Amino acid sequence: MTAAVDIGVAAKTVLCVGHAVQDHVYRLSRLPVGGSKNRATGFTSVGGGPAATAAVAIARLGGRARLAARVGDDAVADEIERELRGHGVDCAQLRRFAGRASSRSAVVVDDPGERMIVNHTDPAMPADPAWLAQIDLTGVDAVLADVRWPEGAALMLARARAAALPAVLDADVPLPPGSPLPRAATHVAFSLPGLRDHLGLAADTPLDAGACAAALQRIARETGAWCAVTMGAEGVLHGRAGAIVHSPAFRVTAVDTLGAGDVWHGAFALALAEGLDETAAVRAASAAAAIKVTRPGGRAGAPTRAERDALLSSTAGGA
Amino acid sequence: MTAAVDIGVAAKTVLCVGHAVQDHVYRLSRLPVGGSKNRATGFTSVGGGPAATAAVAIARLGGRARLAARVGDDAVADEIERELRGHGVDCAQLRRFAGRASSRSAVVVDDPGERMIVNHTDPAMPADPAWLAQIDLTGVDAVLADVRWPEGAALMLARARAAALPAVLDADVPLPPGSPLPRAATHVAFSLPGLRDHLGLAADTPLDAGACAAALQRIARETGAWCAVTMGAEGVLHGRAGAIVHSPAFRVTAVDTLGAGDVWHGAFALALAEGLDETAAVRAASAAAAIKVTRPGGRAGAPTRAERDALLSSTAGGA
Repeated sequence: MTAAVDIGVAAKTVLCVGHAVQDHVYRLSRLPVGGSKNRATGFTSVGGGPAATAAVAIARLGGRARLAARVGDDAVADEIERELRGHGVDCAQLRRFAGRASSRSAVVVDDPGERMIVNHTDPAMPADPAWLAQIDLTGVDAVLADVRWPEGAALMLARARAAALPAVLDADVPLPPGSPLPRAATHVAFSLPGLRDHLGLAADTPLDAGACAAALQRIARETGAWCAVTMGAEGVLHGRAGAIVHSPAFRVTAVDTLGAGDVWHGAFALALAEGLDETAAVRAASAAAAIKVTRPGGRAGAPTRAERDALLSSTAGGA
Repeated sequence: MTAAVDIGVAAKTVLCVGHAVQDHVYRLSRLPVGGSKNRATGFTSVGGGPAATAAVAIARLGGRARLAARVGDDAVADEIERELRGHGVDCAQLRRFAGRASSRSAVVVDDPGERMIVNHTDPAMPADPAWLAQIDLTGVDAVLADVRWPEGAALMLARARAAALPAVLDADVPLPPGSPLPRAATHVAFSLPGLRDHLGLAADTPLDAGACAAALQRIARETGAWCAVTMGAEGVLHGRAGAIVHSPAFRVTAVDTLGAGDVWHGAFALALAEGLDETAAVRAASAAAAIKVTRPGGRAGAPTRAERDALLSSTAGGA
């Protein structure tokens, strides 16, 4: 926990629900080809997963982050938990399932930065979210769910709404057609690929800001939720039905976008937990994500509150 | 420790020195190509390294196995140690070096069985073997060293000789020219590729049994050691200068040869520790390796003593 850090506001708590994974990153001059033995010149292990990375971003911003996620009973689970605890994330609800494998990836990166990724996610990981019903929401100020565990997201978003808490859905990857998740949330934030897929568009179909705004209008009307689509350097479209607005991105030089969307979602949920309105929360989240992309190393580059606030009070741009 | 198993002889102790590694094996229908995201259909984590696998084979045969090896201060070290302890290997000399990375590989296996291997071994792992000088050899009946840590092998083989113990060198991979290791050992066992390289031959140069025998004669004369070359299904050439003989392999159907050489070396060192002569030890080791190759799953397929002895007393062949 990071409660000892003086952040100038009373620390708020966000419960993050969803996916945690560990990436084992091998560096080679060239990607391997076919059946071959290759000697890596470097190795790093870095955690990922939308909910887990959002939790790290929240903790780094001085919030209290709790993570509810499913892992196996293996060495990778130890690695995932150790890294999260090192960032100050409360892992009491990081649940281990005996005989199941934690989600993991082998990632090979070559000198030009191409990535060969092999992920293993245990298909037998229990989907039943009943254990989430036991989590005490006392002291929780917002819930953030990713879509990698739909059953878990549905249950916790419903519980958050019932408790009159912000219930934020990170729709970074395709939702199945007719998914109940957008209706379960009070706030739905799509990635551009997530929105494209939600609209049934092929990956190479152009999707301009006008079309995005029209789509958000329709989704906001259908769901009753506040909706957004994060577009990286193109900023964020967001709002409720009849009132979709655009917030520009902060102008920065990107060196590593890995996990930037997850940082955005964590910072956004924390800002809502702290009582900001949505437009101010978008600006706070965009500033946090902007700082992250200027730094290598994935989620370890998520900013502290002081760093984020310095950018917010600068004249560097942003909404 | 496996001392509680009744093996019909007083359990002897072999100290194994060298390499421990963990292989993270991802199963895919086809090997990945270039920059791509791939979903594995299966995952297993299995330990390897010649000395570590020999130690497992010794423990499964009812011997006492001690492993002296270098690992990092990371989750893979936990995984390596947990698996070895599960097999009954004494890991008191499995030394962790802070800030160093344990040796690890990502292995992708496709449906036809092709393997894409990416290994990372920390080049900054301390080579200084001085800490091995502190290991108490009381109760040790033989020492087995692989060539992946030459400084460690040289020190422990010399200590074993000074204590009048069998000092077995597993020369499974190329030794640097002029390496002092064969002279440091009382027993040197080459793999076919190891012998080929020691003779300065290219990988595609034919090396028939006559040429192998002549090479062993010369090496045995130069080193004063008992020498052998293990040739898989072709059996083993072995002996001292002037007396190189051939022992045939046991006839089995191979399904997985991974780690078979390491099992052979462990079983051979244990047999010497138990007081068998070299020819009987070759036969005992060849039986253990023969059983291992009939089973999938790498070193987990190493036999128990009862299984090995059943093959030895059968009429299935062998020396």
